Amino acid sequence: MPPPTSPTTQMTFQKIAIIGKPGAIGIGESLNQLAAFLHDAGIDVLFEAETARNIGHRGLPGLTVEQIGRQADAAIVVGGDGTMLGIARQLAPHNVPLIGINQGRLGFMTDIPAEGMLPLLAEMLAGQVDSEQRSLLEGAVLRNGEIIFRGLAFNDVVVARGSGSGMVELRVTVDSHFMYNQRSDGLIVSTPTGSTAYALSAGGPLLHPSLGGIVLVPIAPHALSNRPIVLPESSEIRIEVMAGRDCSVNFDMQSLASLEHHDCILIRRSAHSATFLHPRGWSYYDTLREKLHWNEYPSVEGQLK
Amino acid sequence: MPPPTSPTTQMTFQKIAIIGKPGAIGIGESLNQLAAFLHDAGIDVLFEAETARNIGHRGLPGLTVEQIGRQADAAIVVGGDGTMLGIARQLAPHNVPLIGINQGRLGFMTDIPAEGMLPLLAEMLAGQVDSEQRSLLEGAVLRNGEIIFRGLAFNDVVVARGSGSGMVELRVTVDSHFMYNQRSDGLIVSTPTGSTAYALSAGGPLLHPSLGGIVLVPIAPHALSNRPIVLPESSEIRIEVMAGRDCSVNFDMQSLASLEHHDCILIRRSAHSATFLHPRGWSYYDTLREKLHWNEYPSVEGQLK
Amino acid sequence: MPPPTSPTTQMTFQKIAIIGKPGAIGIGESLNQLAAFLHDAGIDVLFEAETARNIGHRGLPGLTVEQIGRQADAAIVVGGDGTMLGIARQLAPHNVPLIGINQGRLGFMTDIPAEGMLPLLAEMLAGQVDSEQRSLLEGAVLRNGEIIFRGLAFNDVVVARGSGSGMVELRVTVDSHFMYNQRSDGLIVSTPTGSTAYALSAGGPLLHPSLGGIVLVPIAPHALSNRPIVLPESSEIRIEVMAGRDCSVNFDMQSLASLEHHDCILIRRSAHSATFLHPRGWSYYDTLREKLHWNEYPSVEGQLK
Amino acid sequence: MPPPTSPTTQMTFQKIAIIGKPGAIGIGESLNQLAAFLHDAGIDVLFEAETARNIGHRGLPGLTVEQIGRQADAAIVVGGDGTMLGIARQLAPHNVPLIGINQGRLGFMTDIPAEGMLPLLAEMLAGQVDSEQRSLLEGAVLRNGEIIFRGLAFNDVVVARGSGSGMVELRVTVDSHFMYNQRSDGLIVSTPTGSTAYALSAGGPLLHPSLGGIVLVPIAPHALSNRPIVLPESSEIRIEVMAGRDCSVNFDMQSLASLEHHDCILIRRSAHSATFLHPRGWSYYDTLREKLHWNEYPSVEGQLK
Repeated sequence: MPPPTSPTTQMTFQKIAIIGKPGAIGIGESLNQLAAFLHDAGIDVLFEAETARNIGHRGLPGLTVEQIGRQADAAIVVGGDGTMLGIARQLAPHNVPLIGINQGRLGFMTDIPAEGMLPLLAEMLAGQVDSEQRSLLEGAVLRNGEIIFRGLAFNDVVVARGSGSGMVELRVTVDSHFMYNQRSDGLIVSTPTGSTAYALSAGGPLLHPSLGGIVLVPIAPHALSNRPIVLPESSEIRIEVMAGRDCSVNFDMQSLASLEHHDCILIRRSAHSATFLHPRGWSYYDTLREKLHWNEYPSVEGQLK
Repeated sequence: MPPPTSPTTQMTFQKIAIIGKPGAIGIGESLNQLAAFLHDAGIDVLFEAETARNIGHRGLPGLTVEQIGRQADAAIVVGGDGTMLGIARQLAPHNVPLIGINQGRLGFMTDIPAEGMLPLLAEMLAGQVDSEQRSLLEGAVLRNGEIIFRGLAFNDVVVARGSGSGMVELRVTVDSHFMYNQRSDGLIVSTPTGSTAYALSAGGPLLHPSLGGIVLVPIAPHALSNRPIVLPESSEIRIEVMAGRDCSVNFDMQSLASLEHHDCILIRRSAHSATFLHPRGWSYYDTLREKLHWNEYPSVEGQLK
Repeated sequence: MPPPTSPTTQMTFQKIAIIGKPGAIGIGESLNQLAAFLHDAGIDVLFEAETARNIGHRGLPGLTVEQIGRQADAAIVVGGDGTMLGIARQLAPHNVPLIGINQGRLGFMTDIPAEGMLPLLAEMLAGQVDSEQRSLLEGAVLRNGEIIFRGLAFNDVVVARGSGSGMVELRVTVDSHFMYNQRSDGLIVSTPTGSTAYALSAGGPLLHPSLGGIVLVPIAPHALSNRPIVLPESSEIRIEVMAGRDCSVNFDMQSLASLEHHDCILIRRSAHSATFLHPRGWSYYDTLREKLHWNEYPSVEGQLK
Repeated sequence: MPPPTSPTTQMTFQKIAIIGKPGAIGIGESLNQLAAFLHDAGIDVLFEAETARNIGHRGLPGLTVEQIGRQADAAIVVGGDGTMLGIARQLAPHNVPLIGINQGRLGFMTDIPAEGMLPLLAEMLAGQVDSEQRSLLEGAVLRNGEIIFRGLAFNDVVVARGSGSGMVELRVTVDSHFMYNQRSDGLIVSTPTGSTAYALSAGGPLLHPSLGGIVLVPIAPHALSNRPIVLPESSEIRIEVMAGRDCSVNFDMQSLASLEHHDCILIRRSAHSATFLHPRGWSYYDTLREKLHWNEYPSVEGQLK
């Protein structure tokens, strides 16, 4: 089991890609500032194509995320967690480490504020960097024994009821062991990264990113004892749609609607993972504490009623 | 990451200990039946001392659990989960595998019913056996820098408020990273084994036994965002009592009361673990399903309203 | 505040309607037995039209539920809670008291088992009867200031997200006071009767039927502090759809899909209510205890570990 | 059912008492400012005795809360919710309306900030005032048929396990109907006022103050189906201690420890209630929203992902 974060001793960055939130207004200045800073540091800057257009770099060709994956030593994403999520999923097969810059409020993954980013980045380029691995889920939908859909999820795979259509019934099997038939609004299969997203709203626990685990969180289950369960990341999960109309499956943002009875969703950990880079001394708990408003009313010692 | 259960190919049993629930009435017949069966199978039977007395084996000396730990190749525990828990904790340093027989209703750990145990045991002795490892927690209480208490927990370590005394405030640090100051009735630090016990009542998730994880479950926390969090089993957890009267710490069944402000409880995974043996084909999910009454109302397909 | 149940002193039954679960197989015998029993007791028996057809009473004309509402002194419903719910909603404007017979397993509302119903009904006809009132919700959907839908709900009114479409955002106002903008999968507005149904699955509390209250239960809310809230039954609740695609509203079983942004759902207690009749001495807690499996493991006194 | 708040048309205030948080440092200026303001408005100011001492009014005799109850037309409490709670409980038998001023952060009951209080108070004295009633619970503890303790609670009555002593088992009866035997850390019986306090931490719903209801919230119950239940305020609740050591009962702040097996706690709504005065237009939902951080991230319309 690796420690939560591990210093990466030999990381060198010759080419760094810059990727901005698609269509975002008002991040141009940050992007240009970033590009100038990297250029001054002797680093080749690659721009993602739409990002290049948005900030008016007409001379620059701009690369696809796929091309970035093949060429870049690291990618800096400027935006929110949603942008980071999408890029991380696309870059996962290429193992390009990611740095997240938030333009607005702090994200779980975009943990460096745009304001004040340059000194932190300078330290990181000088090797003062912590890295962590985040796991992804891969899944397939089977109908009559044939794969009709494949997806990759960084947060979660969600099987859910249709609009205005009552409960679904899902038959869940793990590593060929029958777990239960669950009646609910749906079932969330989440990575540690996704445990602070939809799974948390549905009553799931927080999972530390370096935990080797996958959590199953039922959404409004009929049986009160259908509690969230955390499985080893080696688990192979099979969900069969037994009853319910207009059921859908959702891999992060890619959705397949109109599941039929006996369609099966197979989910397991992807062979790929994403690498996030943080300034040295970074702590996951700092982010949690800030995002979840823990510790809002710290007591003066002994003054508790 | 090991699979949930793994067949143990080379397990041979020359000496097997029998341990009954202390003071239990009506299990004598099971114990004698068990002893006769093992004897007939050519196995040396060791009796725990109190068990021997309870069933009237005056001729037999009876061994301490400590002696059993040094001599036995396996131990069969007859009773409930509480008995199993206590014996597993005592035998953990000796790495003696355990088989759990329930006399009354099914337990999470005592998963073989006394009625009908002999054919299952016969198969297990013949090598048809699955084994799984369960982790333990070890902890120490520090006062003014000195250790005043040490404990081992198979289920959980609980730091909790005193009777009728309002909330405690606990400062929690993990791997030297500050997590939060928590105001609550207390905090449960639980193994996967303990996740079906007190932690579940307090709103925690289920953890699969083969997950490498430790869960922190706050009891009635003041802040609604103080949710259960699952940490890697490599985590070193430090809990400092900041406020509250008559606070206590409890390691499974061993309790230390009257904690003082700034007492620290240090908790980490023990180097020891317990080995449970199950009949081949055993599934953790079968036990969960039965104990948690999952699947009580299986639907006829398509008949969901 | 009325007591949970109140003996009704002057209830006399000249005409009693019999209504069976639509399309149910195997309840014909119960229905005929019931009819013969009532007939022998000198009571005019009215059959609901489909019920009459199902049991082959071709000579009988059969009445609509509407006609039953105008003519019957009471109605006996044979089926499950779903059947009872539908009939209670239709009969509410006519104030016809209802008796619920369950054919299969015990229901929250159908609390008399078909097997053994006759002695209980004999006592009830003789005046040994407790009655209780159950409230209903009425609602309207406004688009651009015009009412486009009206509904009545005995369990709940649910505003929910569409299939595979992310969260909705709902702006909730009570008695013209702004409550919150809620991001979630949806919001359940439930009567006490509905508090044991979907609202319970989504984390809501149980409400005693004689409580004058309405509960709002968010489904998987983004903000962890968006907890269920119980309002006085005089409350006028207004829910405006602010964001989200394919949102729908559901009144028990009547659904209106494709809500648009700024559509408003207005909900308040209906002027109508339903009267349920129970055998004298009936207790709501007995039903809860049985349905929710409370008390499964009653302890022997002092034997708690 | 009264509306959430009702304008009080005939309220006149000749004598107003001022009561500060006991021992509070730094509220002297607010108290003096308040006294001067009331004096200038032609109102007789009564000081609670300890409050008078704290601000150095040696010339003033100072009254007991009991004397204030008999003499004052209203009382202004300066402090936090804890202070307000204690005073409201003492004044409840005298029906003296209360105004709550918070010195630090907003309270649920002390909803007028000290900074800026004078213009609001001026309006209230001129009749621009909303009033609301808050219910209290009264209880008694019976041992061998004799009352050994009586208490009054504005928030809640809590029966709870002792320190480090495992679960209690409580037998709960409502209006002479058996509800359940509950195994848990304890049971909270809460008013609507208390529903934002300990009951909320233990998983209870919010209850609107004008709801006629009492909520039972189990603390870490053994059975997952032991959910919070809201009862009509006419309910008479009886809790018998069946098992568990060192059990205690707590009425807001008054605690009785060392309950014995078969001790019974009887709880019902008190005949007294407290009247809270608010500036006209006050909304309970504003307080909830601010205290619970609802609406922290209002969306721009249509921008939801």
